[in-house]
Amino acid sequence: MNDKQKKPQKLKARLPRGFVDRTAGDMRAVNEMTAKIREVYEHYGFDPLETPLFEYTDALGKFLPDSDRPNEGVFSLQDDDEQWMSLRYDLTAPLARHVAENFNEIQLPYRTYRAGYVFRNEKPGPGRFRQFMQFDADTVGAPGVQADAEMCMMMADTLEALGIKRGDYVIRVNNRKVLDGVLEAIGLGGDDKAGQRLNVLRAIDKLDKFGPEGVALLLGPGRKDESGDFTKGAGLDQPQIDKVLFFVGIKDYAESAARLAELVAGTSRGGEGVDELNFIGALVTSAGYGPDRIKIDPSVVRGLEYYTGPVYEAELTFDVTNEKGEKVVFGSVGGGGRYDGLVSRFMGQPVPATGFSIGVSRLMTALKNLGKLGASEVIEPVLVTVMDGDVEAMGRYQRMTQELRAAGIRAEMFQGNWKKFGNQLKYADRRGCPVAIIQGGDERAGGVVQIKDLIEGKRLSGEIEDNASWREARVAQETAPEADLVAKVKEILAAQAEDRKRAGSGFETPYDPAQAGDTDDDV
Amino acid sequence: MNDKQKKPQKLKARLPRGFVDRTAGDMRAVNEMTAKIREVYEHYGFDPLETPLFEYTDALGKFLPDSDRPNEGVFSLQDDDEQWMSLRYDLTAPLARHVAENFNEIQLPYRTYRAGYVFRNEKPGPGRFRQFMQFDADTVGAPGVQADAEMCMMMADTLEALGIKRGDYVIRVNNRKVLDGVLEAIGLGGDDKAGQRLNVLRAIDKLDKFGPEGVALLLGPGRKDESGDFTKGAGLDQPQIDKVLFFVGIKDYAESAARLAELVAGTSRGGEGVDELNFIGALVTSAGYGPDRIKIDPSVVRGLEYYTGPVYEAELTFDVTNEKGEKVVFGSVGGGGRYDGLVSRFMGQPVPATGFSIGVSRLMTALKNLGKLGASEVIEPVLVTVMDGDVEAMGRYQRMTQELRAAGIRAEMFQGNWKKFGNQLKYADRRGCPVAIIQGGDERAGGVVQIKDLIEGKRLSGEIEDNASWREARVAQETAPEADLVAKVKEILAAQAEDRKRAGSGFETPYDPAQAGDTDDDV
Repeated sequence: MNDKQKKPQKLKARLPRGFVDRTAGDMRAVNEMTAKIREVYEHYGFDPLETPLFEYTDALGKFLPDSDRPNEGVFSLQDDDEQWMSLRYDLTAPLARHVAENFNEIQLPYRTYRAGYVFRNEKPGPGRFRQFMQFDADTVGAPGVQADAEMCMMMADTLEALGIKRGDYVIRVNNRKVLDGVLEAIGLGGDDKAGQRLNVLRAIDKLDKFGPEGVALLLGPGRKDESGDFTKGAGLDQPQIDKVLFFVGIKDYAESAARLAELVAGTSRGGEGVDELNFIGALVTSAGYGPDRIKIDPSVVRGLEYYTGPVYEAELTFDVTNEKGEKVVFGSVGGGGRYDGLVSRFMGQPVPATGFSIGVSRLMTALKNLGKLGASEVIEPVLVTVMDGDVEAMGRYQRMTQELRAAGIRAEMFQGNWKKFGNQLKYADRRGCPVAIIQGGDERAGGVVQIKDLIEGKRLSGEIEDNASWREARVAQETAPEADLVAKVKEILAAQAEDRKRAGSGFETPYDPAQAGDTDDDV
Repeated sequence: MNDKQKKPQKLKARLPRGFVDRTAGDMRAVNEMTAKIREVYEHYGFDPLETPLFEYTDALGKFLPDSDRPNEGVFSLQDDDEQWMSLRYDLTAPLARHVAENFNEIQLPYRTYRAGYVFRNEKPGPGRFRQFMQFDADTVGAPGVQADAEMCMMMADTLEALGIKRGDYVIRVNNRKVLDGVLEAIGLGGDDKAGQRLNVLRAIDKLDKFGPEGVALLLGPGRKDESGDFTKGAGLDQPQIDKVLFFVGIKDYAESAARLAELVAGTSRGGEGVDELNFIGALVTSAGYGPDRIKIDPSVVRGLEYYTGPVYEAELTFDVTNEKGEKVVFGSVGGGGRYDGLVSRFMGQPVPATGFSIGVSRLMTALKNLGKLGASEVIEPVLVTVMDGDVEAMGRYQRMTQELRAAGIRAEMFQGNWKKFGNQLKYADRRGCPVAIIQGGDERAGGVVQIKDLIEGKRLSGEIEDNASWREARVAQETAPEADLVAKVKEILAAQAEDRKRAGSGFETPYDPAQAGDTDDDV
């Protein structure tokens, strides 16, 4: 054998930047969360739909957030017929394509929800991935803003179903038409002003980032950033800037409604927008969703280039500590709006639609902060250890494992190198196995098994055996007849479950004696 | 406005070839199926894991089925640092990368299951997609064939959990080492014969396609296909060919075991392979899985280039009618084997592993054939119709809808253009809504609602009202006080559920009066 020829070049095991693996805990948390979201959406009469990950690039391109750079930000490649395909960038453009492609078969209004991965070919950063999950719901073929109102109520119900208390969230609603009215009122109506309007929209979009002062500069002469780079402004004069800032600065809609109506009076769409906001406000109030839950708020400036009517955003209002150690409001976990143009560009006929998207990772971070995940407890498997490798012994271990499984108990036979018994105990420990079954030659001859309570054993080996009477009744290891295996294991698992219950939610990691000690005081 | 300038070019709404949308029924069926599979795997002590859709191409390349064309068959693109990335081709290569990348944190044996989309950049065809779902389970760090035996038992349990009867499936097991022994026995051992061995493996791989006669030609001088194209053979002589065909033709292992052991006697790995097969056979028998469920069968020739020890395949043995109208055995729905080389190429140390993959679509087709899907019944939403569009009326309709939802009833307010009432009824009909709520001005003034049983109504409007007394008690429409809305709707839904139950499984589409009529005879 030629060593030089045979030795393979060692590959480096690594993922492309911006992509991550997800392990069991994370996946179970996401599944728990998405199951609850799905339940709310189903209740509202929405059905699941899934589109593939690829679309033709032209079906996505025009509705990327930055419409003048259609190919930036997406992963694209050419099919064998030279057509460009891209991985989907969001779940809305594929829905529009689906509706247009199947328009004759689809009964409008078409109510679907969709959960899945989307891809952004962007520079990754902390918490910014190039593959991440969105969860969307949309009603296509719904012309009235009662559909937008329903979306807002559904977002509120979803957050509450996930355990977020009333008062810890608010759904904020604005309307693109009102902004159009403001722009018209300051003389930026008409096709010839399209470019300037776009600059104004982009300036407003920076409100979170630069605050009103920064936006004022971007609306006016322009803004120089810390590095000295200058961004040309939209060239508005001070009275124009004041009106725009008044609009996006409204905090109490009821208080400012009269002034707002006055500002947009006489414009072609501003009044319509204000009426729509009022209609949504009245509808949701009437259905029992007060302004503590759904609030008209003209400072919402999400995706205004993209949406054509109401826009809405779900914000979590509680404080969290950011990476700099500052207390900040958690902020947006999702939002959406009315996009009457997205389907119609395939169709040549108007197809009104409204919907919203939840950022799954971001919402999960919020729920973790609130301690609202992990309700569905997963018990690690019972480990049947291997003491002997002949086919008869293995058959016996395997049979015990299958008996446990048949009784509904998660179980496995040790599948590593069994010859070092220490390996098996280390595995059970690191894996968090609750119980180990041991049968060596002596036990086999006697028709018995050793059943080891690994959690109790761990606790006994710690230094906390002083102040809790309820665990005295248990022993860490016992010998039982083979025939009693299942019953004994069930007994131990039940006792462990009882312990966890007594220890309460502070006892979620039963394998850490220090933590178990802490929670004793609460028992 | 300049028409020419403003009119957008109409896009064609279509998907790239080989990709499909999945609608509610399909998704619910897949979810029902994968939930059952997951339950079995969890029971066996496996945990979920998910890797992203992209990997660096070199991490996938060498283990594509056809190792001399590493870049064909995958979707690849260059990252901004010029490195080639590909969409994953299967779920095994990413697992190998994950284990190697996290080797210090992972406790072996590492038992995971993974479900997700994989991508093949191949010519699509009927039932052949470029994006499809696989469901895998693997144990990494398991040197003994007891781990392979466990995989076979888990496949059997999975098929039974899905409702496939014993006798309708078999798990077939073979071993790559036995084949190696056969090759060595006919003089094809040694590094210098690697090319010829590869040709023999490729010939054997065609057994399903060309039968023993075709394979004999490919093993010998070569084979001319119907179009006249000639494939060069492996150049074996007749005694060599006979031995290979004896091996892959074994139907009854017990009968042929002695002759097989004799054939591979004296080879370096053949005896080991036979011992492993015997060990697996004894283990699974001992655990209660007889040869009717798990069968040693040397005719299994799956991925022999790829696997290093036992290989196993789940076959459904019942007949189905193919597209040509012929009765054929349904065949393979998944399989796997031992791949001791896949992780180690990243590591420079051996990492034994074994696992299998289920083709989700193919298994779903099988379950549909057997009528084993659709157990989880989804009721379409109750429709609250809209008779009046002022904000007060809308608020009232919305409130009714929310009351129904709060009572656990799937419900929606009509969100399309409500002005044509016919639209709303058509929607309810096509959507399959079970109940419609109607409140016009008169009803509103009287504080009542009309509640319409759409399923009973549909039946009454058919011609089948003659021979079943159990539906006489129901009326298609009634007027109820607003306060009784929820109670009345619940009553109707319960009566409909009762009807479905009486009608049995033949009544799965309750909106088809003809079918409802057919099933009446069975009541």
